[in-house]
Amino acid sequence: MFSVGIIGITGYAGVQLAHMVARHHHARLTYAGSHSHAGRKLKDIHPHLASPEGDILLQDDDIQTAAASCDVIFLALPAGIAAGTLNEDILKKTVVIDLGADFRLRDRAVYEAWYKKLAAPSALLEKAVYGLVELHRDEIRNSRLIANPGCYTTCSILSLHPLLKQGLIEPEGIIIDAKSGVSGAGRELSIDTQFCEANESVKAYGVAVHRHTPEIEQELGFARQGGQPVIVQFTPHLIPMDRGILTTCYASLKAGVNASSVAAAYEDAYGKEKFIGMRPSSSLPQTRWVKGSNRCDIGWVIDERTGRIIVVGALDNLVKGAAGQALQNMNVVMGCDEDTGLSASGIFPI
Amino acid sequence: MFSVGIIGITGYAGVQLAHMVARHHHARLTYAGSHSHAGRKLKDIHPHLASPEGDILLQDDDIQTAAASCDVIFLALPAGIAAGTLNEDILKKTVVIDLGADFRLRDRAVYEAWYKKLAAPSALLEKAVYGLVELHRDEIRNSRLIANPGCYTTCSILSLHPLLKQGLIEPEGIIIDAKSGVSGAGRELSIDTQFCEANESVKAYGVAVHRHTPEIEQELGFARQGGQPVIVQFTPHLIPMDRGILTTCYASLKAGVNASSVAAAYEDAYGKEKFIGMRPSSSLPQTRWVKGSNRCDIGWVIDERTGRIIVVGALDNLVKGAAGQALQNMNVVMGCDEDTGLSASGIFPI
Amino acid sequence: MFSVGIIGITGYAGVQLAHMVARHHHARLTYAGSHSHAGRKLKDIHPHLASPEGDILLQDDDIQTAAASCDVIFLALPAGIAAGTLNEDILKKTVVIDLGADFRLRDRAVYEAWYKKLAAPSALLEKAVYGLVELHRDEIRNSRLIANPGCYTTCSILSLHPLLKQGLIEPEGIIIDAKSGVSGAGRELSIDTQFCEANESVKAYGVAVHRHTPEIEQELGFARQGGQPVIVQFTPHLIPMDRGILTTCYASLKAGVNASSVAAAYEDAYGKEKFIGMRPSSSLPQTRWVKGSNRCDIGWVIDERTGRIIVVGALDNLVKGAAGQALQNMNVVMGCDEDTGLSASGIFPI
Amino acid sequence: MFSVGIIGITGYAGVQLAHMVARHHHARLTYAGSHSHAGRKLKDIHPHLASPEGDILLQDDDIQTAAASCDVIFLALPAGIAAGTLNEDILKKTVVIDLGADFRLRDRAVYEAWYKKLAAPSALLEKAVYGLVELHRDEIRNSRLIANPGCYTTCSILSLHPLLKQGLIEPEGIIIDAKSGVSGAGRELSIDTQFCEANESVKAYGVAVHRHTPEIEQELGFARQGGQPVIVQFTPHLIPMDRGILTTCYASLKAGVNASSVAAAYEDAYGKEKFIGMRPSSSLPQTRWVKGSNRCDIGWVIDERTGRIIVVGALDNLVKGAAGQALQNMNVVMGCDEDTGLSASGIFPI
Repeated sequence: MFSVGIIGITGYAGVQLAHMVARHHHARLTYAGSHSHAGRKLKDIHPHLASPEGDILLQDDDIQTAAASCDVIFLALPAGIAAGTLNEDILKKTVVIDLGADFRLRDRAVYEAWYKKLAAPSALLEKAVYGLVELHRDEIRNSRLIANPGCYTTCSILSLHPLLKQGLIEPEGIIIDAKSGVSGAGRELSIDTQFCEANESVKAYGVAVHRHTPEIEQELGFARQGGQPVIVQFTPHLIPMDRGILTTCYASLKAGVNASSVAAAYEDAYGKEKFIGMRPSSSLPQTRWVKGSNRCDIGWVIDERTGRIIVVGALDNLVKGAAGQALQNMNVVMGCDEDTGLSASGIFPI
Repeated sequence: MFSVGIIGITGYAGVQLAHMVARHHHARLTYAGSHSHAGRKLKDIHPHLASPEGDILLQDDDIQTAAASCDVIFLALPAGIAAGTLNEDILKKTVVIDLGADFRLRDRAVYEAWYKKLAAPSALLEKAVYGLVELHRDEIRNSRLIANPGCYTTCSILSLHPLLKQGLIEPEGIIIDAKSGVSGAGRELSIDTQFCEANESVKAYGVAVHRHTPEIEQELGFARQGGQPVIVQFTPHLIPMDRGILTTCYASLKAGVNASSVAAAYEDAYGKEKFIGMRPSSSLPQTRWVKGSNRCDIGWVIDERTGRIIVVGALDNLVKGAAGQALQNMNVVMGCDEDTGLSASGIFPI
Repeated sequence: MFSVGIIGITGYAGVQLAHMVARHHHARLTYAGSHSHAGRKLKDIHPHLASPEGDILLQDDDIQTAAASCDVIFLALPAGIAAGTLNEDILKKTVVIDLGADFRLRDRAVYEAWYKKLAAPSALLEKAVYGLVELHRDEIRNSRLIANPGCYTTCSILSLHPLLKQGLIEPEGIIIDAKSGVSGAGRELSIDTQFCEANESVKAYGVAVHRHTPEIEQELGFARQGGQPVIVQFTPHLIPMDRGILTTCYASLKAGVNASSVAAAYEDAYGKEKFIGMRPSSSLPQTRWVKGSNRCDIGWVIDERTGRIIVVGALDNLVKGAAGQALQNMNVVMGCDEDTGLSASGIFPI
Repeated sequence: MFSVGIIGITGYAGVQLAHMVARHHHARLTYAGSHSHAGRKLKDIHPHLASPEGDILLQDDDIQTAAASCDVIFLALPAGIAAGTLNEDILKKTVVIDLGADFRLRDRAVYEAWYKKLAAPSALLEKAVYGLVELHRDEIRNSRLIANPGCYTTCSILSLHPLLKQGLIEPEGIIIDAKSGVSGAGRELSIDTQFCEANESVKAYGVAVHRHTPEIEQELGFARQGGQPVIVQFTPHLIPMDRGILTTCYASLKAGVNASSVAAAYEDAYGKEKFIGMRPSSSLPQTRWVKGSNRCDIGWVIDERTGRIIVVGALDNLVKGAAGQALQNMNVVMGCDEDTGLSASGIFPI
């Protein structure tokens, strides 16, 4: 049994994580940090939670205090805060799994260009591992600082990584058209996420400038032989639903590549993965099939007419795209079975 | 470890039950009956399910065969079928938990008047127990035939039972105005449940004739001293959401009844119940707070101006209103801890 | 051709009104008041509007200035502002149609008890007419100050008024259980109306204290012979949809009243009304059937078992419940055909 | 005043058209054809419609009979029926505006390859004009057979046509990722469009095989100098909302093309069009802004990093994508003002 802290527990990712940690056989939630609601019980803010986790008393979101008493702490904070607060002393005391963006990008200049903030110190960045378990399992096992990937990025990278790794698609010209439910925008008040403004509508946003772009490019670049850079066109859209991400990825197949080689590449990459659901070609992923699940579903179609492969990925942005993946990281780093407390099955209709 | 069969597994209640049974530590799903999809895997019909439960092979929905091999069978069938099929021989072999209506009403004439079908034989009806655990726990423990309550009825009865039992409200003039998500209508094709017909709209239906009415009246009648009859006005409404039931109940307070006596009645009835969530008066139940949970939340307001109490109940129609309650019944009858495989906490936002 | 001003034009009711005034053959929108957005074009805030109305320049929401230049001004303002600003001088210059609550209640003490604000001066209140055209057409024609009714109240009053007027129902024990889309809450930022908080959920709110209660009671009291008071139990609910109100009204029928007398009462009251849609008994109103329409649909069922009538009303809260009704009032007071610029047909599916 | 017939009036496009024709100053609806509901009134099937159009008696969907009595007939029928029924005799009697696909494609072989049905006779096809008014206004004016474009195609073609015509983008490598509300699937019963199956989810469908692809390619090919072919990758997605289409189009800019030349191309093409809404670059189109409007909104972003332009189009699939465009065609061919009975402004929030 180990002790767990969550900083930023009342946001959508934080409270999903609280729900999951409370059901984990080896973890015990002992620190619940909330900047805005310290002094109240978690169920006062989130009445969907019953005892015991609903009764946890919220404390200030103090990383130092949490680190002193917890074996693992999860950070669910706005960009920039973790970068400015974490240090080696904290990492000596506790394992940090950061759901934010501050430790995801290897290149400080790239972070600063896209985030318009000071990047984390190099010494810390070097200790960080990109927490996409299916790609970096062994490194995660030996790390004390895990950068949990973004929701869009998890879905995009898992969809395309095997094809780039095996050299089946052209690395140029990749387009990722992504669709997300509204919970991806977090719980902050905003006119754009008011019910009557987001309901019954769809829109593109962050076109050409969305911050998940460099994260996708970094990991897809690593997939290539020699790690050469990959440039992707990434366009997110807001969909009138609570949860779910769908990424529709377009890439040109290299000459001679056919359905068998594509199927083999995915089998090779994910054949033993519990949380990747490869779809039959007749039935592409839908976000309703992964709600509440830690799965990322992937399906694909080859268009002979255009020479392209269209790969569709789907996941629950608050589970495999945030809290579930964070728990999966915790399981790996703490030596638990990787699927402890995680469900591959989803819940439907919900 | 005991073996479980589900007949009618591909409907919304059936597949929710499959999901829950697969996560139950003492149960093993061994018979999956589906009239329409026999020969296919469950995940072919319901891709949200992963292995192992997704891989179950669907068989014909044969109650006899299921009974011969299972310790418990759940029936999720249209009205009339269970009444015409069950017999004492089956009940000798297995425990039956019926999610349908055929064994809920004690009075055969009442069943036949509301359902326009032949009622189940008296001999079988006498063996049946109404499976609302919070009211009939001891009888359920010793039964072989459990009639799992309807979704609207569970919410309505739990809301009002303590007040009638303690004689705090007038038994005359009770009105229950209920609201349900669309999954309550089941998975059959229907123009009224097509997306564009149900979305962005609300309507009343079954006014004065809804079949859950006599079930509510029966159990509320039992609550009264002497079991005198109770007549309720019950009006369901269709709400553009997947899951959830809210019941707004109106009753006149008897003279001298105040907030303390009401609070005491609920505390007396539910103080030790894990799956009843009494809300503070400042914060009435909302269906989003019980999604995925086996809880029924209850809150109330006394209107001094009108002399009435307004009691609001909320539950997830596929969990406490169907599959979760069925599992709770199974736990009781099979001697497991009552909350095995059931969560009091919900999932939000989903 | 007469000139029209709208104060508070960027709220949901205000912008619906702008859309309607722009399509009215005899009216011209000449003053567009917006406290927060003065200096911008209306289409900058509301890009659904094209030229010409989208190009209107927003001015400060100054009632005096608007009154000086407009034949009619509409006020869509928070409670209390109109009461503190209007005066006889303004009413000499212009006709005022107030979409707010300040002039709806005849009794200043009732207003102050429910609104916790100072009521409008008696001298002004005496000039005000309650702008429910179907009930007060002749008074409206001769008024300079029209209090446009609330959305819930319009639906509730129209549903029950003929029954009380004809003495067909008991005035005691009336219950109105109402359901509203989220646009009824206005366009102000609020955590409760954020998409992920309101979507896929239903809740009651304002139980026993909602401010539309006294407005309903006032007009239903006027319906009774002798104008004796009527007390109603009114409970609103929030429904996950943009537009629409459904009111489910419960009342006890007086002895000897039957379906014919009820039908005759409605025919007598509404037989010649263009904007009341009486439904056949087999098909109660649904909110989707009145979206974009100025109709209030009404249907009813008699429950012989309980001696009650259940009357269901439906309207579009931003049309017959706000802007459409305001335009209908304008037509009456300005001498236009009552349906100019108003559609009895709705739009579906939308 | 001219007389109008609608064949297939009870589908979503047909009933939207009925609503619009009833509000048109020069047209009178005289023939309402419905295969399934002949003998009933239109408002029995669609209670959102009030008198007068709601009272129209439905007749069998007989094109011959309609042609004999109407100046214009609209066909809203499944693919293949119009191709097999229309003939020169009918076109002598009446103008036909076909909302289906049978006369959209110039090349019979292309039609037969994508639709797996016999194409319309060449003699008839030669008389047909592709009814996208902004591109073919003059031809439409002189035609008797107008093929109203598909919903996805209208949005896609209008978005990209000016760029291809001016040679600003590479004709190779165009990708159109489209999103549609559920009404696009029509009113037929289907498990995929049941509320609980489509709600709270997003999916791709028809990947690489959707029938709107060749229609887009045909018109974009015509845009090029010399009419050389254009191949596009078209992927539609189903969005949990009633109405609206958003197309996100990706194309590579030719060398030297900049924002000014792009803006000039759109201005040149659409500067005088009432129903094209060019968005400022800071504010891309959203489907909620065109609901109920006959507008197609277009916005674009140049991504210097990738050398691409991303063009986003939005329209209401039942208005500019179907019935509104059909009415616009009628206005042109019958010599009315092009915007008669059509609104450029939308309705919001609805």
